[in-house]
Amino acid sequence: MGIIVQKFGGTSVASVEKIFNVANRILEEKQNGNDVVVVVSAMGKSTDELISLAKQVTSNPSKQELDMLVTTGEQVTISLLSMALHEKGYEAVSMTGWQAGIQTEPIHGSARIQNIDTTRVQNALNEGKVVVVAGFQGVTEDGEITTLGRGGSDTSAVALAAALNADRCDIYTDVTGVYTADPRYIKSASKLSSISYDEMLELANLGAGVLHPRSVEFAKNYKIPLVVRSSMERVEGTYVLEEANMEENLVVRGVAFEKDITKLTVFGLPKEIESLSSVFTPLAKHNVNVDIIIQNVSDKKLNTLSFSVKTDELQDALNVLENNREAIGYDHLEYESGLAKVSIVGSGMISNPGVAAKMFASLSEEGIFVKMVSTSEIKVSAVVNEEQMLAAAEKLHETFGLSKVNQPVAAVK
Amino acid sequence: MGIIVQKFGGTSVASVEKIFNVANRILEEKQNGNDVVVVVSAMGKSTDELISLAKQVTSNPSKQELDMLVTTGEQVTISLLSMALHEKGYEAVSMTGWQAGIQTEPIHGSARIQNIDTTRVQNALNEGKVVVVAGFQGVTEDGEITTLGRGGSDTSAVALAAALNADRCDIYTDVTGVYTADPRYIKSASKLSSISYDEMLELANLGAGVLHPRSVEFAKNYKIPLVVRSSMERVEGTYVLEEANMEENLVVRGVAFEKDITKLTVFGLPKEIESLSSVFTPLAKHNVNVDIIIQNVSDKKLNTLSFSVKTDELQDALNVLENNREAIGYDHLEYESGLAKVSIVGSGMISNPGVAAKMFASLSEEGIFVKMVSTSEIKVSAVVNEEQMLAAAEKLHETFGLSKVNQPVAAVK
Repeated sequence: MGIIVQKFGGTSVASVEKIFNVANRILEEKQNGNDVVVVVSAMGKSTDELISLAKQVTSNPSKQELDMLVTTGEQVTISLLSMALHEKGYEAVSMTGWQAGIQTEPIHGSARIQNIDTTRVQNALNEGKVVVVAGFQGVTEDGEITTLGRGGSDTSAVALAAALNADRCDIYTDVTGVYTADPRYIKSASKLSSISYDEMLELANLGAGVLHPRSVEFAKNYKIPLVVRSSMERVEGTYVLEEANMEENLVVRGVAFEKDITKLTVFGLPKEIESLSSVFTPLAKHNVNVDIIIQNVSDKKLNTLSFSVKTDELQDALNVLENNREAIGYDHLEYESGLAKVSIVGSGMISNPGVAAKMFASLSEEGIFVKMVSTSEIKVSAVVNEEQMLAAAEKLHETFGLSKVNQPVAAVK
Repeated sequence: MGIIVQKFGGTSVASVEKIFNVANRILEEKQNGNDVVVVVSAMGKSTDELISLAKQVTSNPSKQELDMLVTTGEQVTISLLSMALHEKGYEAVSMTGWQAGIQTEPIHGSARIQNIDTTRVQNALNEGKVVVVAGFQGVTEDGEITTLGRGGSDTSAVALAAALNADRCDIYTDVTGVYTADPRYIKSASKLSSISYDEMLELANLGAGVLHPRSVEFAKNYKIPLVVRSSMERVEGTYVLEEANMEENLVVRGVAFEKDITKLTVFGLPKEIESLSSVFTPLAKHNVNVDIIIQNVSDKKLNTLSFSVKTDELQDALNVLENNREAIGYDHLEYESGLAKVSIVGSGMISNPGVAAKMFASLSEEGIFVKMVSTSEIKVSAVVNEEQMLAAAEKLHETFGLSKVNQPVAAVK
């Protein structure tokens, strides 16, 4: 007997039929004697449809008005889901973000949650109702409607779970859990029974799309157990916890990979203390996300600096650097596109030196040349040629024993 | 220089193109140096579409959840209209009902406005912005989203005009103004340059669909000049004011008519003081709207009571009366459907005795038999056979000189 927060994404509520399927999942938890708070996204592609409506009005819609527009999407879902629960004979009440007390910073399009006043939700739970909350949305202190940006509904769910001191937050999605690698590409990938917050955070940041990094961060900070599971199939999901299941005894728990990476090199940079900041400050100001950074300091007066960006941000990066050429004082730029990043993630690395060395040896065996490297305490990333990405990922998956994880491999939709 | 409230209905904002047309009308008023508050409905048929979505979930949706659902319709319009105003280079901000401070009683589906806190609207006006408010919706003191029922957006507009002490409230619609009779049926009908609140109220209650009675009542109570005008055609509309233009010197200012009326007669009612209330209390409890009531008191112990209802409420009325037969103690029921109500409305009647007599004489000339009569200070209604309704209306329109009103007859869309 406790509070369970469940989150269902857009594909899980894409039709009236699917909404009834979701209602059934909710009622199972309710029948277990738990209080249930449900967070839902907009139905299917309805957010995209609303945005395309805005684009018919203006090519550059105000973010405030766009928030006003797109938040109607979740509002439709919460009302229909509540009606479906009523139809099944249960008490339920829908709440928009502002009604659920989700207060955010005053930024449109990607606000962070600052505070949740759970009074209204708690009162409804006390009356025995299922509470259905609109995900992805909040309200500023001044009463302006905001949205939380990508992965916002996950964040709404985890934040509500934290504020309500929930026993668990279940993230229902279109996959059955978190895998050792993306099973669409790595056939031997298997579902993990558990993973630590830190590992999940690295995987999420590396582009494993199951959970948004912000929601994982929230869960970690408030120690909310997360479960990633399928809304369609009745199989066990993956627990995201403080400490993952140690009996699996994995040094590396997952392999992630991402293509469309470009390596950009700045030649002839003055060897001054301000050089790095003179390059990266203007890039940050223009929202160019820089990933791996390598600086070759030599004896000479001038430095060479390389960093990686997503290829679709390359043009922005080049523009920013060229517009700031005098201020930075570099000689010339070079770039290499068609690259990919392959990463291994696992808490076990901390106590296992030589993991990176094993990784490089393994890639070298396959004749894969590593162009850039980046490491954290629980992650090693290597930049390789795009056409070698999958071979690299498969090799690492095998090298670190992930193909033998004792989990039944569930089908992925 | 003052505040003008403009209201645009669903057909005026049914497409992106029409939304830009509305933006132009707003900017004309803004360019006149006025502060403008705009109230809009949901786009075209979108409310109907949302309701049909709900009906796919349940045949009997909760009114609270239905309010949650349908209020998204106006929210979509306000954001798109604000974007259109931005696109034209003007500052604008959208507000939902709750953001605009429209507080209602805690009733879903047909709440009355209790109070409007205009702080937010006034602040935005002070910043030079056009304020675009979602019509038809409000919020209870407890933060529940409500809707105002039929004609709700008119009521939102007039109530905002009252609360803001606006100079005028312009109701843009798909007709060019208020007519002496419905021009779709009475070819000689002409547009009135002005009409009094009381006359408009009678006409609105008699089913002249231009304005909802509640909005007229609000305008009357707060002495807000209303203008009914076309959103598509650039012609003068009709002013609704305390005192209509007297130079037109009309005793009767309009003829209204409505079909699908049924006369219901209760025979053998005990001649007791409670009799009337024993019939009408249960009908009211079941939301059966009774219009004209006639009681024939005779010398005998028993009374006969007749009243009219809309034909689509007949079955409800019969059920209620039959279920309460013992408590009421009547003998039997009879009813006659296929009737219509024809009414004349005009403030001038108060000082003109004999208007009703002239009406009856005129109908009698046409061989039209009057089955029931009801009068107010500024209205006479007669129930006639449905097939004689238009003949009666045309005859009365001519008898009271309405075909000669000195107004250019504008086209009606």
